[in-house]
Amino acid sequence: MDNRSNEKKQTISPSLPSGFNEFLPSDQILFNKMMDTIRASYESFGFLPIDTPVIERSEVLLAKSGGDTEKQVYRFMKGDSDLALRFDLTVPLARYVSLHYGELTFPFRRYHIGRVYRGEKPQKGRFREFYQCDIDIVGNGTLSVLNDAEIVGVIYQTFKALDLGGFTIMINNRKLLGGFFESFGVSNITEVLRAVDRLDKAGPEAVAKELTELGISKECIEATLKLAGLCGSPEEVLSEVGKWNIDQELFRQGVEELRTVCGAIGAYGVPAESFKVNLRIARGLDYYTGTVYETFLDDHPELGSICSGGRYDELASNYTNQKLPGVGIAIGLSRLFSQLKESGLLKETGKTSVADILTVPMDDTVEYALRVAAAMRKKGFAVETYLNGGKMGTKMGYADKLGIPYVFVCGESECDEATVTVKNMKTGEQINVPMDLENGIDITV
Amino acid sequence: MDNRSNEKKQTISPSLPSGFNEFLPSDQILFNKMMDTIRASYESFGFLPIDTPVIERSEVLLAKSGGDTEKQVYRFMKGDSDLALRFDLTVPLARYVSLHYGELTFPFRRYHIGRVYRGEKPQKGRFREFYQCDIDIVGNGTLSVLNDAEIVGVIYQTFKALDLGGFTIMINNRKLLGGFFESFGVSNITEVLRAVDRLDKAGPEAVAKELTELGISKECIEATLKLAGLCGSPEEVLSEVGKWNIDQELFRQGVEELRTVCGAIGAYGVPAESFKVNLRIARGLDYYTGTVYETFLDDHPELGSICSGGRYDELASNYTNQKLPGVGIAIGLSRLFSQLKESGLLKETGKTSVADILTVPMDDTVEYALRVAAAMRKKGFAVETYLNGGKMGTKMGYADKLGIPYVFVCGESECDEATVTVKNMKTGEQINVPMDLENGIDITV
Repeated sequence: MDNRSNEKKQTISPSLPSGFNEFLPSDQILFNKMMDTIRASYESFGFLPIDTPVIERSEVLLAKSGGDTEKQVYRFMKGDSDLALRFDLTVPLARYVSLHYGELTFPFRRYHIGRVYRGEKPQKGRFREFYQCDIDIVGNGTLSVLNDAEIVGVIYQTFKALDLGGFTIMINNRKLLGGFFESFGVSNITEVLRAVDRLDKAGPEAVAKELTELGISKECIEATLKLAGLCGSPEEVLSEVGKWNIDQELFRQGVEELRTVCGAIGAYGVPAESFKVNLRIARGLDYYTGTVYETFLDDHPELGSICSGGRYDELASNYTNQKLPGVGIAIGLSRLFSQLKESGLLKETGKTSVADILTVPMDDTVEYALRVAAAMRKKGFAVETYLNGGKMGTKMGYADKLGIPYVFVCGESECDEATVTVKNMKTGEQINVPMDLENGIDITV
Repeated sequence: MDNRSNEKKQTISPSLPSGFNEFLPSDQILFNKMMDTIRASYESFGFLPIDTPVIERSEVLLAKSGGDTEKQVYRFMKGDSDLALRFDLTVPLARYVSLHYGELTFPFRRYHIGRVYRGEKPQKGRFREFYQCDIDIVGNGTLSVLNDAEIVGVIYQTFKALDLGGFTIMINNRKLLGGFFESFGVSNITEVLRAVDRLDKAGPEAVAKELTELGISKECIEATLKLAGLCGSPEEVLSEVGKWNIDQELFRQGVEELRTVCGAIGAYGVPAESFKVNLRIARGLDYYTGTVYETFLDDHPELGSICSGGRYDELASNYTNQKLPGVGIAIGLSRLFSQLKESGLLKETGKTSVADILTVPMDDTVEYALRVAAAMRKKGFAVETYLNGGKMGTKMGYADKLGIPYVFVCGESECDEATVTVKNMKTGEQINVPMDLENGIDITV
């Protein structure tokens, strides 16, 4: 029963939920630029866009997963619907291809850039909501191994366009790894591959210990560490592997696939120094069945793989009896962006304003400043007009804070003479030039 | 204890939750094109991008709302966090501006294109997950009414760029309406405006009845219906309104604002026939305090307003004691797209494939076809290579189904002679031309 008036209003703290993230506009512009570059690269290879709902039926989303995934997923009831937020873009792809099977053209080549949700423990650079940029090529029944080379072509062109410095695409083949371990009589291959996958993080001794605990023989462990050390040009690595005389069918298939894939990569314009066969790459996920990829920045290997993926035999066996083999990769854009920002690699990647020009009127010349803006917009520039009065210093300060490179002063004398005074905000130079109110004028932005 | 083997695997139905929607790639391409056009138009006016989390704290998201909104919202617990999915982009804007107040430059001009969630009863063209494309200009303390004209400029350039045919932007002012009713001694103005807002849907008789029930005098109802019939050029409407001799301060302010706003619109290049003052426009939402907008397609008024918004005094009073007046609009893109598709207005709006060219190898010329593709990609085309073997008919059928306009046949003779056989898939014409494997060749796509 508190009826006091004139009390200062209680406000609610405008905070984000823990683990969630958003950018100030200057970073958002850089983030969007990266996303646009990735999209343009994917589209230049003819990949088709899809955009699935963020919310799926829990039964669909959790058909395959268990353990950690299930614990991390955002799941809730709405009415009597059991719903969940997608935690990757692969399960939605499987669901999409199964649902629209009859309406799609195969091989189905799609890209998907969207947000996914994982209730992970929040930590630096790890978010609970993040963007992934995926491409996959899905075959109907079969899919030529040449598509695995195409993926390398896309990775190369994409990171070249992103302009983050030198990078190397590491390629391996799960059949080669699987056959290798089978030739030693190892049966728990998935567990063994998981251990090998931790080599970079844990080091050879820890992995050797883990393999011993998994019941792997000393001879096999030695051979494994030797194999895991092999990384080089396809010729080097395949010639070394040829010497091992491993007489095992799966192994031979893996070697053959690797040879075919690497043989086709050059035709995509990928230079030899940008990809290597690295027999250590295993990928933790157990659904990969052939080629696997990881990608590293040459000067920043500490960032880990910035683009990973591989070949799988069964995309959608939970939803359909159709056999749908595929190959694909994902770029975890939110994480990559945060790493790049942290490492100071973002600084030079582009402009931090949207507007190219701010037109600035005096009290009586608003209409003129608006007409100048409209003409410059017609010319293709992004143009804003300062509409809120105040002193010249305030107006210039606004352009400065937003990083707008040019101010067009549109005062009374400019209006009378149909000119503008162009001020270059970086150099401070200014010059009075005639204005074409129909078509705008050229400037170098 | 069922251990039968060789059983056909039980699969899960890959269906979407009720009320959710996704496109096949051909429609997704058209949808993305509209979204890109809107974004480019917003950016051409220098609006800054933001992208807030889809998930917010329930306390934040539901600070203001009640009733229907609260029932529709997707709200759930994750651990001990009470979370909810955003139901519009305005509440997140208010939260964003309050949270980052000290780091933003005012007037803060932002656009936001993103998905929002409402658990509405599913119906045709209404989705539970849909895209909104918003712009707002938010002032710090004050904001010149000229910004209200800028919004009209943005609406005009955006719908002109979307190329959906003729459209008219309807403008009104809530102060004018409020002052009008106050001059008749009406106190329950919000309810009265809500009734007036239903004029188009319910008709004058139903609204008159509703107003009578609200205790409005016969004289006032007559004047209201006369006012609601006024729609025309600013000159026409304002000269008619001038004759009413309403001596009321708020009314005078509204008339003056309308005059100022309409006087500045022409400088944005908006032709006189594209905007009207329409005194019937009230907007249901009670937080608008000045200019209000609705936009209609001239040939399809039945679609309702395709872009609406207005001026408000207090964006974020729930989160901050700062006074943040603003003006903005939203385009409900998912709904608009679905309406346009239904009305057959989408057909001619653009290409329905991503790839411009499909290069087609024979068995032994895969590498050549890949090199041709890489060269054409360098030239700026989106190019795909058919990698999966099979008959020529299958390969051509693939290009046909995806609407890829050109096939480059790269057979053995083409490879030997460094040519390609270009087939125009629309006309069926084909022609053999020399290929430049370094830089590609020109074609008209």
